[in-house]
Amino acid sequence: MAPTPPLPEYTAEFQFLKLSYPSPGVMHVELNRYWREFEAAFSRISLDSTVRAIVLSSALPKLFCGGVDLSFLQSLNHNTDAGRSGLLIRQMTTEFQHAVSAPERCPYPVIAATHGKVIGLGVDILAACDIRWTAEDAVFSIKEAAVGLAADVGSLARLPKIVGNSSLLFELALTARDFSAQEAKDLGLVSNIVEGGRDEVVGAALGLASRIAQLSPLAALGTKRFLLHAREHSTQSTLEYEATWNMGVLQGPDMVQTATAAIQKKGKVDYAPLAPWLKPITKL
Amino acid sequence: MAPTPPLPEYTAEFQFLKLSYPSPGVMHVELNRYWREFEAAFSRISLDSTVRAIVLSSALPKLFCGGVDLSFLQSLNHNTDAGRSGLLIRQMTTEFQHAVSAPERCPYPVIAATHGKVIGLGVDILAACDIRWTAEDAVFSIKEAAVGLAADVGSLARLPKIVGNSSLLFELALTARDFSAQEAKDLGLVSNIVEGGRDEVVGAALGLASRIAQLSPLAALGTKRFLLHAREHSTQSTLEYEATWNMGVLQGPDMVQTATAAIQKKGKVDYAPLAPWLKPITKL
Amino acid sequence: MAPTPPLPEYTAEFQFLKLSYPSPGVMHVELNRYWREFEAAFSRISLDSTVRAIVLSSALPKLFCGGVDLSFLQSLNHNTDAGRSGLLIRQMTTEFQHAVSAPERCPYPVIAATHGKVIGLGVDILAACDIRWTAEDAVFSIKEAAVGLAADVGSLARLPKIVGNSSLLFELALTARDFSAQEAKDLGLVSNIVEGGRDEVVGAALGLASRIAQLSPLAALGTKRFLLHAREHSTQSTLEYEATWNMGVLQGPDMVQTATAAIQKKGKVDYAPLAPWLKPITKL
Amino acid sequence: MAPTPPLPEYTAEFQFLKLSYPSPGVMHVELNRYWREFEAAFSRISLDSTVRAIVLSSALPKLFCGGVDLSFLQSLNHNTDAGRSGLLIRQMTTEFQHAVSAPERCPYPVIAATHGKVIGLGVDILAACDIRWTAEDAVFSIKEAAVGLAADVGSLARLPKIVGNSSLLFELALTARDFSAQEAKDLGLVSNIVEGGRDEVVGAALGLASRIAQLSPLAALGTKRFLLHAREHSTQSTLEYEATWNMGVLQGPDMVQTATAAIQKKGKVDYAPLAPWLKPITKL
Amino acid sequence: MAPTPPLPEYTAEFQFLKLSYPSPGVMHVELNRYWREFEAAFSRISLDSTVRAIVLSSALPKLFCGGVDLSFLQSLNHNTDAGRSGLLIRQMTTEFQHAVSAPERCPYPVIAATHGKVIGLGVDILAACDIRWTAEDAVFSIKEAAVGLAADVGSLARLPKIVGNSSLLFELALTARDFSAQEAKDLGLVSNIVEGGRDEVVGAALGLASRIAQLSPLAALGTKRFLLHAREHSTQSTLEYEATWNMGVLQGPDMVQTATAAIQKKGKVDYAPLAPWLKPITKL
Amino acid sequence: MAPTPPLPEYTAEFQFLKLSYPSPGVMHVELNRYWREFEAAFSRISLDSTVRAIVLSSALPKLFCGGVDLSFLQSLNHNTDAGRSGLLIRQMTTEFQHAVSAPERCPYPVIAATHGKVIGLGVDILAACDIRWTAEDAVFSIKEAAVGLAADVGSLARLPKIVGNSSLLFELALTARDFSAQEAKDLGLVSNIVEGGRDEVVGAALGLASRIAQLSPLAALGTKRFLLHAREHSTQSTLEYEATWNMGVLQGPDMVQTATAAIQKKGKVDYAPLAPWLKPITKL
Repeated sequence: MAPTPPLPEYTAEFQFLKLSYPSPGVMHVELNRYWREFEAAFSRISLDSTVRAIVLSSALPKLFCGGVDLSFLQSLNHNTDAGRSGLLIRQMTTEFQHAVSAPERCPYPVIAATHGKVIGLGVDILAACDIRWTAEDAVFSIKEAAVGLAADVGSLARLPKIVGNSSLLFELALTARDFSAQEAKDLGLVSNIVEGGRDEVVGAALGLASRIAQLSPLAALGTKRFLLHAREHSTQSTLEYEATWNMGVLQGPDMVQTATAAIQKKGKVDYAPLAPWLKPITKL
Repeated sequence: MAPTPPLPEYTAEFQFLKLSYPSPGVMHVELNRYWREFEAAFSRISLDSTVRAIVLSSALPKLFCGGVDLSFLQSLNHNTDAGRSGLLIRQMTTEFQHAVSAPERCPYPVIAATHGKVIGLGVDILAACDIRWTAEDAVFSIKEAAVGLAADVGSLARLPKIVGNSSLLFELALTARDFSAQEAKDLGLVSNIVEGGRDEVVGAALGLASRIAQLSPLAALGTKRFLLHAREHSTQSTLEYEATWNMGVLQGPDMVQTATAAIQKKGKVDYAPLAPWLKPITKL
Repeated sequence: MAPTPPLPEYTAEFQFLKLSYPSPGVMHVELNRYWREFEAAFSRISLDSTVRAIVLSSALPKLFCGGVDLSFLQSLNHNTDAGRSGLLIRQMTTEFQHAVSAPERCPYPVIAATHGKVIGLGVDILAACDIRWTAEDAVFSIKEAAVGLAADVGSLARLPKIVGNSSLLFELALTARDFSAQEAKDLGLVSNIVEGGRDEVVGAALGLASRIAQLSPLAALGTKRFLLHAREHSTQSTLEYEATWNMGVLQGPDMVQTATAAIQKKGKVDYAPLAPWLKPITKL
Repeated sequence: MAPTPPLPEYTAEFQFLKLSYPSPGVMHVELNRYWREFEAAFSRISLDSTVRAIVLSSALPKLFCGGVDLSFLQSLNHNTDAGRSGLLIRQMTTEFQHAVSAPERCPYPVIAATHGKVIGLGVDILAACDIRWTAEDAVFSIKEAAVGLAADVGSLARLPKIVGNSSLLFELALTARDFSAQEAKDLGLVSNIVEGGRDEVVGAALGLASRIAQLSPLAALGTKRFLLHAREHSTQSTLEYEATWNMGVLQGPDMVQTATAAIQKKGKVDYAPLAPWLKPITKL
Repeated sequence: MAPTPPLPEYTAEFQFLKLSYPSPGVMHVELNRYWREFEAAFSRISLDSTVRAIVLSSALPKLFCGGVDLSFLQSLNHNTDAGRSGLLIRQMTTEFQHAVSAPERCPYPVIAATHGKVIGLGVDILAACDIRWTAEDAVFSIKEAAVGLAADVGSLARLPKIVGNSSLLFELALTARDFSAQEAKDLGLVSNIVEGGRDEVVGAALGLASRIAQLSPLAALGTKRFLLHAREHSTQSTLEYEATWNMGVLQGPDMVQTATAAIQKKGKVDYAPLAPWLKPITKL
Repeated sequence: MAPTPPLPEYTAEFQFLKLSYPSPGVMHVELNRYWREFEAAFSRISLDSTVRAIVLSSALPKLFCGGVDLSFLQSLNHNTDAGRSGLLIRQMTTEFQHAVSAPERCPYPVIAATHGKVIGLGVDILAACDIRWTAEDAVFSIKEAAVGLAADVGSLARLPKIVGNSSLLFELALTARDFSAQEAKDLGLVSNIVEGGRDEVVGAALGLASRIAQLSPLAALGTKRFLLHAREHSTQSTLEYEATWNMGVLQGPDMVQTATAAIQKKGKVDYAPLAPWLKPITKL
């Protein structure tokens, strides 16, 4: 018998990130400096059937993310031989990667809103988000090479597939130099530069999330999955996947509801949540 | 014994699209609102050994494509159980995908010239064309999410591989909002914005097609196939494919003819058609 | 028993390319018109443990690369049947591809600095380099289709993965027309346009190489390999590869040396060369 | 609008193969010497919603298949240059491959029943069938290498994935020697040797087909697709495909009908045909 | 900061499976009828640094596994539309697959010892184990097609890659018929038939596990990973993976310890456990 | 300009292996204990246009291969840090893998004839050969796990794809135990057990090679390549590769020569060598 999915009960227990519902269907995740709770938060949100879109931002006024604490990297020595130390490094790297990839696994679209310093791990996290908007004051850096390692938790694995100029990407990754919001847009890393700083970009991203939250959640879920699938598979394989996916999903009522609403000139459709069998999360 | 390839006999039988030969080697396909004949037309053109390049446009002054008729999507119910309905959806989706992919399968380069509204299915078709030029008056929309479904006939499967900013692509697909010719160019969806409307962009595209029509058809066919192969396979696999392909094709006379013409200062080479054993299509 | 890696002994034996060490860790490769020694030079440099970054440029004032000599292409006929001629074409194409791919195989980052005419083979070579900067005077052409063949040594195999606008790429490859430095940047083929000509772009590239040469060579090597791996594999596969790679490499001292230097406010770290067991190459 | 699937109307029009319905849900395809109609027959059967399983055999007493007529292979010369001749060879080979693959594409399980000589093309066809039984009198040969070509329509492409001893496979393909039913079983090419000749093996295969015809057609269709998918993709990819497929298909009533029948001790369930919207084919 | 791996604390809390340490380094997992705890048990064992090899068997005298409870399959209806029901099916199937795959993910070799009835889910579990031995009294069945569904938790996804006769596999999966230990061996599903029943096969498997437990755990871990990697990737990709893996692992002392022991004629080497930083699990 | 392929000049210079031409078109490679010259010998043979098939055996009466010298494995320490040591291990492993893979890269079919002890590296070499025959006196062992490492030069990378019982393979690789010729055949590692010892199996293999040497070399080359391609790619990809390959190769005269000879009842055809432009190697 398959385990029934555990019901989420997330409350205000998170210390280093803050969750809020600023508008219907929109979840706002604000990161503080520590990211330990990052994966746990996304796992819970993924099971919250009232969510339709997520905005990820920093809670700090001048810093989106300052990178991994170097003392952590130095702590990996466990007084064992090089073979077993290697296995430990691999296990912890794999867990770290899994955490950073949480926005990508999340069924709902995730909008990153960056500002201030976006350093090292900050770019890794950014690369795992679906839509990437930035304040004009942001300064980015693929910092890892400057601290003596090749970045292994997401930036180098995802960026070659999601930006449009490999030469610029190699330059930024191989020099670890700072680059501006404009250069991030030229690269294809972000798609919108919002005038101002943290407040302005968060406000704009929340507006975008509200817009997405009004669409059919079946349509939004499928659109995200299909775009991610296409990034990783051949075109023919994705077409086949889409047709197979829609065998079941297209039998949902959302398309008919939309058409009926259009005929009846109703502006907004009340789509059912994705997982009506899940209790809404109320303890937040 | 293998079937001999059926000889094309296309005549003026198409109701909803118009075919014409505006200049040597150039086929112009003009779509009306209905696209049922789309695949059949490309299948025939693919066997026409006098064609060297194709321009695909709309025949309507203000509309490139208005998307799928929603009543069709609603008609898929066949009073059967959900399992068998799923199989029907899958079969029809697969056939629809196959039709939309016709420009990609076609051996000759296909230039899309868009103008006016380019909605939903219009973007799916555009994504299957090799070169994409637009009039400045065009307005695009990846519309499917707004009508309650995840687009499954080409846009989401192809665009992640052919544009340069995944963040903008997710935003456009997840909001289904309109975007302009300039934004389409920033995205990497089109490469040229022609001032004016339908007539201007079609004229420019026909000029480009004429230029391509003067090249060796072996070179043009191979170039298209190699670029498409590279999009779907590893670099090493494509290099191996290219070397294997050219085992046979490079023994054709086109390269020598070109070199000889260059030495003799002849501006134009009369290359043989790709398939001289096929009778030209005369009944058009 | 595995063969011990042959020690490099390169001297001034190259006739058609010139090697020099303009600054610590930087190797400058200057091509003359002939490229026969191209692969051999990179094979030797790859074993030189004093190198950290490479600049590839032309030695000629107005020409980066004029393309393959057409007489070579015509020389492939060996008076044998079409089957065996095909095998010869395949073998020579494969060897040619292997030579052109040398910058990609090289463990050190390779910066191409182009100027003047960059024709046919010039673009193939450019596509195999990691960072691509150009002088503003450069004129590019994916020329092969204009001489009657589909390019099979790198341009068509690599460009679809490293640029951001497939429509523009198809247009340039299918027309073989000239395009400017600005269009090359719009395409995503180059990332920086340096004012001036050969001297200016080479100077700028050498400066960039010096900057890269100061990073940990373990970090630079890994960064290059990870970005190239990501271009060819799924994201999950690259994440797995990175974690597996760093099982061993992260046990090197470079990260700790960097952290220590940062704490001690030392600006520069003296990292060990990548292959301390290799004798430095002194006969140059 | 997607084309509605053409209704099958197959009649007794086939000259070189014979179709019959020996028992409910079982289609028997008997090949004569010529295979031109092979693909057309399978295309029609694939749309026949009364079929549940297919037996493919020869109509001749001593010969399953004698291989391609060599005069056909010699006829490919079309008095054109080697480049364009190559394109013709490629097109015809691709069409030939498509025909031979028809049993694999067919949604219903296909059981091959071989006897007598199974030469060249006979093995290619056999490799495209799901279940392969043979009479003990059969003699097989992967004959192509003995007539001067490398087999390119299925044997060499499929056998490495479906047999269990690559060394024996290379030996048989590289010597083109005859091999017996027992060796075919040792290789993994067939799974059952039926005593006797054509009549006995066909009888046994029809019995097996009857057994399969009593299962849920949704289950049989999915089982065939999943096994074929697994042969071509990673395990993880197939698991994902299966879960996605069953989103729709598992909502059919077949599983509940089976459970209910089991509880009610009913031996046989009357499952709905796969495509109840298709008219049964009556003109046979 | 990456989460530190949770320390295992497994005690006798499992109701439906029993864990024991019959000999040094050997963990014995005995399944009762219910498998809910299956994944949890393997997750804990995977973190137990005293384990070197695992034997998986049933605790019941006449039954290895009777398949999924049909009432579970019928319970999936949640009174929602077909689109959202499809998502629920997909999520539960994915979780079920993840549980069944636990032996494959486990770093230690897993030996399955089957006897009695091995039905449906039993074959899925078997296919996820590394070494498969059976008692001669076993009767197997890929039962799913007989209950109206296509098996989607492992059998059809793994068996095509691990057996040697695809024809027999299709026959067994498409008829759902019983097959004997001998036929299972002919198929390649098991590799050893032990005379007797449950006790005999478990005894033989424990002996095999003891033998494996004496090898270097680095060698055993790597051997399992490499064989599984090869099953899923190209040969070249696996060779590259192996060389990259051994960059770190080969720096462990196990190879030198083995050689030294051989020179010193010591029969047994005391290798360090794989994860010396993990506390041994003592509460069992 | 592409480098012209270097002409082979191999003489009797090899110390540790012996080359001879026992019959027309057959090259016999006899290994002594050391294998350093293994790759060089195959590189030369690959360019010898008089070769059609190769037999690989040992020159020693009781030993096919005793495995890698452990002192070599211990010699990899170069007094450097673990990061750079890892790179050295990786480089040497990659070179070693490349050498062991030489039979697979060789254009001509390679038949391994084993006898006596076939230990560790012996199985790696065996797995890289096309046809594998053994004397009945052979004893095999995938020995690496017993000496503390996971085999990384071919056995674990190739065997999962070329044998028919993954359970037996895991058992042999995880116990490192001896296994007999009969078990090797049951596994699918060899396909023929020749009574007797070294002389008998070499004699039988030379007879098989003579048979292959009489076929068209175009057919033999293509058959080997197609079977290897199919092992590594999807069926559809191999079919496409085969059709593309035969665009050129099928224009050779071999097929017509064969047909003509058959009509004229000539038993043997004098096919041209694969590379008539290469001088035969006469200094042997």
